[in-house]
Amino acid sequence: MAEIRILTESELRQCVGLSRELHDVIAAGFARLADPDVVMPPVLSMDLPAVNGEVDIKTAWLPGVDNFAIKVSPGFFDNPAKGLPSLNGLMVLLDARTGQVAAVMLDNGYLTDMRTAAAGAVAARFLAPEQVHTAGVIGTGLQARLQIEALLLERKVERVLVWGRDAERAERYAAEQSRVLGIPVSVAETAERLVRESQVVITTTPAREPVIRAQWLHPGLHITAMGSDSPLKNELDPQVLGDADVLIVDRLSQSLERGELRTAVSCGVMQAAIELPELSALCAGHHPGRSSQDQVSVCDLTGTGVQDTAIADYALKRALRQGLGASIIS
Amino acid sequence: MAEIRILTESELRQCVGLSRELHDVIAAGFARLADPDVVMPPVLSMDLPAVNGEVDIKTAWLPGVDNFAIKVSPGFFDNPAKGLPSLNGLMVLLDARTGQVAAVMLDNGYLTDMRTAAAGAVAARFLAPEQVHTAGVIGTGLQARLQIEALLLERKVERVLVWGRDAERAERYAAEQSRVLGIPVSVAETAERLVRESQVVITTTPAREPVIRAQWLHPGLHITAMGSDSPLKNELDPQVLGDADVLIVDRLSQSLERGELRTAVSCGVMQAAIELPELSALCAGHHPGRSSQDQVSVCDLTGTGVQDTAIADYALKRALRQGLGASIIS
Repeated sequence: MAEIRILTESELRQCVGLSRELHDVIAAGFARLADPDVVMPPVLSMDLPAVNGEVDIKTAWLPGVDNFAIKVSPGFFDNPAKGLPSLNGLMVLLDARTGQVAAVMLDNGYLTDMRTAAAGAVAARFLAPEQVHTAGVIGTGLQARLQIEALLLERKVERVLVWGRDAERAERYAAEQSRVLGIPVSVAETAERLVRESQVVITTTPAREPVIRAQWLHPGLHITAMGSDSPLKNELDPQVLGDADVLIVDRLSQSLERGELRTAVSCGVMQAAIELPELSALCAGHHPGRSSQDQVSVCDLTGTGVQDTAIADYALKRALRQGLGASIIS
Repeated sequence: MAEIRILTESELRQCVGLSRELHDVIAAGFARLADPDVVMPPVLSMDLPAVNGEVDIKTAWLPGVDNFAIKVSPGFFDNPAKGLPSLNGLMVLLDARTGQVAAVMLDNGYLTDMRTAAAGAVAARFLAPEQVHTAGVIGTGLQARLQIEALLLERKVERVLVWGRDAERAERYAAEQSRVLGIPVSVAETAERLVRESQVVITTTPAREPVIRAQWLHPGLHITAMGSDSPLKNELDPQVLGDADVLIVDRLSQSLERGELRTAVSCGVMQAAIELPELSALCAGHHPGRSSQDQVSVCDLTGTGVQDTAIADYALKRALRQGLGASIIS
């Protein structure tokens, strides 16, 4: 018999949103990844071709964090035709010392959206140049919005450029986000123009062929590629990784399997046995991140269980403090 | 926004128990494992040495079954000293066509106990000789009880023998289960005596060294080994597998990794590349199971996601029919 907190998406939206505090929570989670007691198994990935779906399960046990999350992320891509969102899911939170179920967070992917954007912000905190006049985003979906909103909490940005394959969606993004952010957001003519004019670029697409070419790189540019999270996806020309002065990944083993590194290794631009610093090293103070303002830095994010555990533990504490959610005894 | 059913352990106990119907449900689940569209990824196993714990996550998507389960099984072995059970957990049920969360079953491992016992019963249905005078069980815990109760729904058994390392626990088992089952249950002097006198033997221990020797086998014996579910466990002398006339596993890849087969292969008694029939072949009618009354048959059960999906889908339907559980909109 244990008391289990059940939290709905709307309750979670009341207690967790993008903030510097959330970025700190995610950075602290990454910092613990450097601890030898951390346990983060490979993603359990389940392809369901018969229903055009997939399920990813991520988890990480972090020493010193009271609870750990098991995050279930289904993606069912025929859902929109049925009037349902493609992405979905929940997080189960277990007590880190007893394994008892502490909470079930019926977030429909909301916490994943938040922790993904927050990881982008953490990467920018350590890797973006100090002065960011223009931030560019490739893609026009939810993460294209959230990543820029999170970035703006880390750097003072004067304007935003957006580029996407669907020009109409890009126009809509620019119009809406100008209002939301209170700074000019405009559509770049080409991805190349966007990259050349930006100091920070974030790629947020499910592209299977590169959207950024190595020839477009310029001193003082930081790129975060957060779109690729499965072996078929690829947003960066492999030579972008080869040419970067600072190349950081969220988790080396995952990046080699399902991130930009995978393509770079398969093209021979990088070695499979490469040692690269992980975002955890920056968060733990073991790596300086960007060490001069004219370096080109690249961060490849695939999404880790550390982020899920960090945000879910934080969400539970905030929910309890605010008296949100129902308790069930089982 | 979806309607999600939340079911507690006591509600699940009201709608699911051992029965021939449950055995049929588990057998039907196994039968679907022969379908090429089935998706059952390897177990996600998480060892947590810092807190003497582990978490296993199992799942299987079965064509033709409305929902599929993701089952989270934590085992935290310092819990008893804290007044908490070692085993715990829950099942999340997703709609098989949309991935939407259909139910959260806060069963504390109850459904796992039931589906494990039911798989033993299904093995006995196809493999035990028709006449079982004596059934023997090695081990004195919950599965030692449930496996025999489930077996009694499949075969008319005259008496039960029990053997365990702890003689006092074995005596208690015999006294209690005599009352529960309404047939004589007595403690065997030795494991050897138990095996030699039984037509069906079920091993239910976390043993790391064999509890059954090949010399004790005799014509017309069926053994189900359900204890080993991790690489360090081993209940059967490898030669038992080598000498069996009929050797069945629940899932070949799992048995090679975490079942009795693992030890048999590492000792050279079996080949790593061995092809063995799975329980699914018996359930689907593709393998006859026992084909004569004097064969020696052995079934190695490691526990599969198929069982979790089958029992969870069944439990949800029964709970909805009985109006059990709370609905949460999220």
